[in-house]
Amino acid sequence: MIHAGGAARVLAAGGVRSLAFEASKPLQLSSGESLAPLTVAFETYGALNSARSNAVLVCHALTGDQFVASTNPVTGRPAWWPRIVGPGRPLDTNRYFVIAPNVLGGCMGTTGPSSIAPDGRTYGLRFPQFTIADTVRAQAMLVEALGIDTLFLVAGIGMGGMQALNWASAYPKRVFACATVASAARQSAQNIAFAELGRQAIMADPEWRGGGYQSTKPAKGLAVARLAAGIANRSDASLRQCYAEARAFAFDAEARGTLAAPGDRFDANSYLYLTRAMDQFDLAADFGGNLANAFTGGATRHGVFAFTSDWRYPPSANQAIVRALIASGAEAAYVEIDTEQGHDAYLGDLAAFETALTGFVDSAASERGLALSGGGQ
Amino acid sequence: MIHAGGAARVLAAGGVRSLAFEASKPLQLSSGESLAPLTVAFETYGALNSARSNAVLVCHALTGDQFVASTNPVTGRPAWWPRIVGPGRPLDTNRYFVIAPNVLGGCMGTTGPSSIAPDGRTYGLRFPQFTIADTVRAQAMLVEALGIDTLFLVAGIGMGGMQALNWASAYPKRVFACATVASAARQSAQNIAFAELGRQAIMADPEWRGGGYQSTKPAKGLAVARLAAGIANRSDASLRQCYAEARAFAFDAEARGTLAAPGDRFDANSYLYLTRAMDQFDLAADFGGNLANAFTGGATRHGVFAFTSDWRYPPSANQAIVRALIASGAEAAYVEIDTEQGHDAYLGDLAAFETALTGFVDSAASERGLALSGGGQ
Repeated sequence: MIHAGGAARVLAAGGVRSLAFEASKPLQLSSGESLAPLTVAFETYGALNSARSNAVLVCHALTGDQFVASTNPVTGRPAWWPRIVGPGRPLDTNRYFVIAPNVLGGCMGTTGPSSIAPDGRTYGLRFPQFTIADTVRAQAMLVEALGIDTLFLVAGIGMGGMQALNWASAYPKRVFACATVASAARQSAQNIAFAELGRQAIMADPEWRGGGYQSTKPAKGLAVARLAAGIANRSDASLRQCYAEARAFAFDAEARGTLAAPGDRFDANSYLYLTRAMDQFDLAADFGGNLANAFTGGATRHGVFAFTSDWRYPPSANQAIVRALIASGAEAAYVEIDTEQGHDAYLGDLAAFETALTGFVDSAASERGLALSGGGQ
Repeated sequence: MIHAGGAARVLAAGGVRSLAFEASKPLQLSSGESLAPLTVAFETYGALNSARSNAVLVCHALTGDQFVASTNPVTGRPAWWPRIVGPGRPLDTNRYFVIAPNVLGGCMGTTGPSSIAPDGRTYGLRFPQFTIADTVRAQAMLVEALGIDTLFLVAGIGMGGMQALNWASAYPKRVFACATVASAARQSAQNIAFAELGRQAIMADPEWRGGGYQSTKPAKGLAVARLAAGIANRSDASLRQCYAEARAFAFDAEARGTLAAPGDRFDANSYLYLTRAMDQFDLAADFGGNLANAFTGGATRHGVFAFTSDWRYPPSANQAIVRALIASGAEAAYVEIDTEQGHDAYLGDLAAFETALTGFVDSAASERGLALSGGGQ
């Protein structure tokens, strides 16, 4: 059972747990606006030790959610990172207290465009624009409310990796170690173009209704957006498996193949807002364009993991992070995993990645003085 | 003035010239079906010499057309390859008789889904499925009707490169030289995925009406398809120029930036058929899976040109062509041009490409005994 401190209370509805902050505790946004009331949905795995030193924050990718290691009770989808988070896994829930929040602007319980605004109507496009830094600020409010001062580890993949880097930069004393998987310190033009493609497809769907859709969703537009993301997330080799039957396709109006997600529950407006936040992410921008300055003076140990065939966040983008970390004087390990599975390799059965991540986490745990077997410290 | 032989007559309407074959001369399709009557729209530049030995066939890319070196009179768009085709250019119209057909299934005069079927109604999705080989067969009918036995050169870019390779394979004695630019002997899974994305976007547009649209076109779907093609055709560096202002985007329903083509005249059903033909292209398939066998016994001289930052048809795909050519015993030159402009580099101001292409063409012309200054031979 989790007890939140301060002006927040834990809610649970339909299997989705969340922390609801009182309206008197708004989220301050980078734009100058504030958002209240704020609710942050989250899941936890494992137990917090008595020293409160074994907390791990896992930041999900664009269309991920907080159900890292358990079935999503709303969609019925299985855990998305069971090979990484769980008993005996690299983020060992026998040792660590894993907190996985749903992102700001998401659609799995955290306040977002599909939430009800204070005026009783759905936010829709009235939801304020926000940044990755704002997402991290909302996560920090959650972590504080849970009574955790310092996170042993922040780990993030893709968009979540951007959040992890932002955590290490914004709260250097509160992040002991940081694992960035297949991410970047700045969104590439290709990723921005892909995101724009998905947004245009959604906005071209008449069911989008200028963002004001209610029960009928812009499902076709979202399916095309998903297809675009599916292309970006896969290598040619792994796409070939999906499109082996392409030569026999007939023309029809159903998005098909494993790239499309039938019955997609993702919220189209969330897709618009989240991709926009990623577009605008450029961690160096607030530091005179020098990424190293974003990490100067921090003591966080960094692990940066890249996949050779990932062309959404290619090795070069991850290497740029490592170069900046080293230039800043930070301790940084870089691991490049040879795989043909593209960006989505993080979801798969990839022993080399698991071994490397385990090595990084175990080493950091040893430095942190965390016992090899879980429980109190 | 061009006089066509056989059962065909030259038409001209609205600045678009075409060769209309009589219904008694159908196009035999790979599927076993036949298409009649067939019309092939084309443009020519320069003059055929008395030996009829200086004809060059230029095969356009997916959304290109026959207006290689002159303004398209229908759309008003300027010539798309003026740096390559023209007086003193690599395909020197003072020396060569350049023939540029619009592809089968296209929408600039050659019979396609937007043409009127014999029953007086638009073909739409009743248009038969066809292959790249069928496109080439239609071009061969045009070339024959123009009284040309052997082409000095077939040059093609992207989809046109597939046609050029198919020409050299199907008609080895009728192609003296073949220039393949930024193409492949088989469509990659990534390209198939991009095409499927575009098709889904078109078919998700309610104005598509199951392919039966009339005056109101599925413009939004086509804009998304164009956006997808625009991403695939550019490198990250060249996309960055387009998306420099991405950080300031607001959400709106207009496709924007230079990737979208406002007032696009391309036919959505043509996009469906042409991309499907490209998906299915695999030149080795009819040769026991061994691409070299596609060229065995041919005497065509090949030039294969690739752009370093092209990720639609990367150097590796072009190198695969060269390896097969060499294995077949053919004469093959490979030139890789260092550029950051991606696949669309062929459209740009790229001196290294022009120089290399000129070298290849001049060398072939010398072997062919074509005089350095145009006219008779």
